[in-house]
Amino acid sequence: MKLLKNTKISLLSIVGLLIFVANASAQSTQDSIMLRKIYNECMMNSNAYLHLEELCKEVGGRLAGSPQAAQAVEMYEKWGKTIPGVIVTKQACMVPHWVRGRAEQAIIYREGTSPIIMHPCALGNSVATPQKGIRAKVVEILRWSQLDSLGKVGQLRDKIVFYDRPMNPTFVDPGEAYGDAVDQRWAGASRAAKYGAVASVIRSVTHAYDAFPHTGVMGYEDSVKRIPAFALSTIDATLLAACIHGNPNLELYLWDECQMLSDVLSYNVIVEMKGSEHPEEIITVGGHLDSWDLAEGAHDDGTGVVQALEVIRIFQQLGIKPKRTIRAVAFMNEENGNRGGKAYAAAAKEKGEKHIAAIESDGGGFTPTGFSCSDANRYQNALKHRWFGLLSAYGLRDFERIGGGTDISPLGRELGVNLFGLEVDAQRYFDYHHTANDVFENVNAREMNMGAAAMAMLVYLLSEDK
Amino acid sequence: MKLLKNTKISLLSIVGLLIFVANASAQSTQDSIMLRKIYNECMMNSNAYLHLEELCKEVGGRLAGSPQAAQAVEMYEKWGKTIPGVIVTKQACMVPHWVRGRAEQAIIYREGTSPIIMHPCALGNSVATPQKGIRAKVVEILRWSQLDSLGKVGQLRDKIVFYDRPMNPTFVDPGEAYGDAVDQRWAGASRAAKYGAVASVIRSVTHAYDAFPHTGVMGYEDSVKRIPAFALSTIDATLLAACIHGNPNLELYLWDECQMLSDVLSYNVIVEMKGSEHPEEIITVGGHLDSWDLAEGAHDDGTGVVQALEVIRIFQQLGIKPKRTIRAVAFMNEENGNRGGKAYAAAAKEKGEKHIAAIESDGGGFTPTGFSCSDANRYQNALKHRWFGLLSAYGLRDFERIGGGTDISPLGRELGVNLFGLEVDAQRYFDYHHTANDVFENVNAREMNMGAAAMAMLVYLLSEDK
Repeated sequence: MKLLKNTKISLLSIVGLLIFVANASAQSTQDSIMLRKIYNECMMNSNAYLHLEELCKEVGGRLAGSPQAAQAVEMYEKWGKTIPGVIVTKQACMVPHWVRGRAEQAIIYREGTSPIIMHPCALGNSVATPQKGIRAKVVEILRWSQLDSLGKVGQLRDKIVFYDRPMNPTFVDPGEAYGDAVDQRWAGASRAAKYGAVASVIRSVTHAYDAFPHTGVMGYEDSVKRIPAFALSTIDATLLAACIHGNPNLELYLWDECQMLSDVLSYNVIVEMKGSEHPEEIITVGGHLDSWDLAEGAHDDGTGVVQALEVIRIFQQLGIKPKRTIRAVAFMNEENGNRGGKAYAAAAKEKGEKHIAAIESDGGGFTPTGFSCSDANRYQNALKHRWFGLLSAYGLRDFERIGGGTDISPLGRELGVNLFGLEVDAQRYFDYHHTANDVFENVNAREMNMGAAAMAMLVYLLSEDK
Repeated sequence: MKLLKNTKISLLSIVGLLIFVANASAQSTQDSIMLRKIYNECMMNSNAYLHLEELCKEVGGRLAGSPQAAQAVEMYEKWGKTIPGVIVTKQACMVPHWVRGRAEQAIIYREGTSPIIMHPCALGNSVATPQKGIRAKVVEILRWSQLDSLGKVGQLRDKIVFYDRPMNPTFVDPGEAYGDAVDQRWAGASRAAKYGAVASVIRSVTHAYDAFPHTGVMGYEDSVKRIPAFALSTIDATLLAACIHGNPNLELYLWDECQMLSDVLSYNVIVEMKGSEHPEEIITVGGHLDSWDLAEGAHDDGTGVVQALEVIRIFQQLGIKPKRTIRAVAFMNEENGNRGGKAYAAAAKEKGEKHIAAIESDGGGFTPTGFSCSDANRYQNALKHRWFGLLSAYGLRDFERIGGGTDISPLGRELGVNLFGLEVDAQRYFDYHHTANDVFENVNAREMNMGAAAMAMLVYLLSEDK
């Protein structure tokens, strides 16, 4: 009563507040019903898993510039055109064209015993060894400071540098453990070459202890001699380290024939559903169509592109007319250049398009747990509060990270677009990442569909938001 | 200033509050340091995965009463005795002894075409068919109301009832979808027998679409004729349904030879670390040592028992002297009787033991997400607020459910003990549950160790709590 006794304004305020709450509550109820429809449609009728099987088994590995990548572009275009009422376009971009060649070789030679044959892979973008291969002594490096101190006294000259620092198992987030170890892959060759090393080899960047070598992109510094760069499986790396500890004078033989060819014309594929009220406002949802060549690119990132298309299929199937324009985008060349992501942002800038949000799924087809977000003020706040109840009902409750995704990052940098990344239970991701083990069979249909449903629900909330 | 100007009492209150906050903050910092030590010890040095391999590969399936269950008891005892300073005891209980016999048979006969051989399994506790098997027409049932309406007009007499209702894919929590479908397995045989059916068959209770039949416990009503009960894989069930739709007069042949033998003496294994301040207050952490016979009982529940032992190993290794007594308990006979859980609670009651909490892991060795809790007032509140920051740093943020676990449920019922259940990313659990697919290779070491670390952290907080 104390609260009410003062003024008319108070009463009016309260009435206003009640109307606002009633409206907000009605909106929330309506959203809740639509999210349930979206979720059910996805869990009962998704064709994302069939698409993933077709992509993995009929195309397989599809590094940018390869015939397989071109085949994947055609396949995605074909899928898009099966959805009524959407516009399917290809967006050209020139992509690097790196080829691995025949299977790489690595052999440990020790005096007085038989050679040990290992099963390495070249890192992406690596140059080849000379035709006769490289045979040299090996220095195991666990810290950059160790590289520098040995390098400065000439102990790396004509040696093979073996970066053996594992992913740290005590990081809760395997993505952070990956970030902590992947510098060896990215920068190891040039940093070793500066000290006269003839090749570099890394322990694969993974928590798994198995026989799969993990490739992934590496880069060369401009002014440094380019030396070949390899990865060993964690089993082979452990074996090599044990051999070195027993016999520091052993020699390692390395051979590969990979090379960088001329750039090739390739494409992003865009499947667009026009907005009904604000067609000029664009929401992008995507993943990348290219993958490393060693396997089928199932988790990385076949799941992302089939999930994005599933978002459009769900909207079409349920007859949702989104207020804003929605684009499922299959980006090209995330793995070794991000040319597709850059071309998409450049075109948006040139055309003066208004992009209000972009969502990427590139963490594998695992159980979704939430979304990262680049806009802490507006959208992360909405995720944590206004939309929390709506999304947490579907197990989505992790909205703490600042993030997005590689393909959509140029949109953020160039146009200030709000970015979102699908967060998943990623503990197994780096078991498969960039290896021959990243195959269709290792993706669980239900987990992947839950990710597609999560993306569709967020797209709906963004599209219908005031 | 307004707040401070009134009285001395206010100032004293504030000083008191500051001291309280400072103390609480110091406690929280100390807890945070210990939880990190516990986590790191587990993620770097756990031997839970080696134990799991030994249990799965040297013992394998270990249904209560079997020689393998006895072997598992010995193995767990042996493991316990490798930890210095603990007391290892066996706690006797009589357990049922059901045996499957040779592989079951199911064959579809249709006039004019070849028979179709399927690969069923008997449900646990089922009686056998007659030696020559059962051959009868089949009625597909999707709802209980359908069973009753057909049964009442005599259409189930001398028929095989085929319960074909699938797990509902639109439930977010697969445990809820399981609960929603498993009534067919548990109660289907007697409910069909009441209407004169001669056998019952269920579609396996799983989201997976594959060739593995899922067993699991069923029960008979006392006054009803006991008819044999089988499960078909989801692929076989789909095939059978399609055949029935095409030819309602087909016949199904079923054969098995399973039987219930006399009860057998078996044991829970208890590995106890005495409390340093309140040794009379007991915290139980456990899982169940028995498993279904078809596979290796890896996720269900090899992981639970090796995680529980890992909790004790971590405490011993880190030199933690817990204030309260901690017991890792490997319970016997969860799957088809819960005699171990009942014996444990009965002994506690008889001895007048003071149990303050019990934690169970029986949801598979997947990425942990939080804990369910039976005590909403005290402990769930602590999980959601006081301990939230400490645990959410390790990805544990789901504390919404009221729960516990089957083995520890008698402790709750009989002694009012506060129960906790380890919550995990359970989307794949029912793909493996009670099938030949529940093998060591399908458990990810890192995910399982994260679960062990979560349990150890909660045990620590409970043990050191005021």
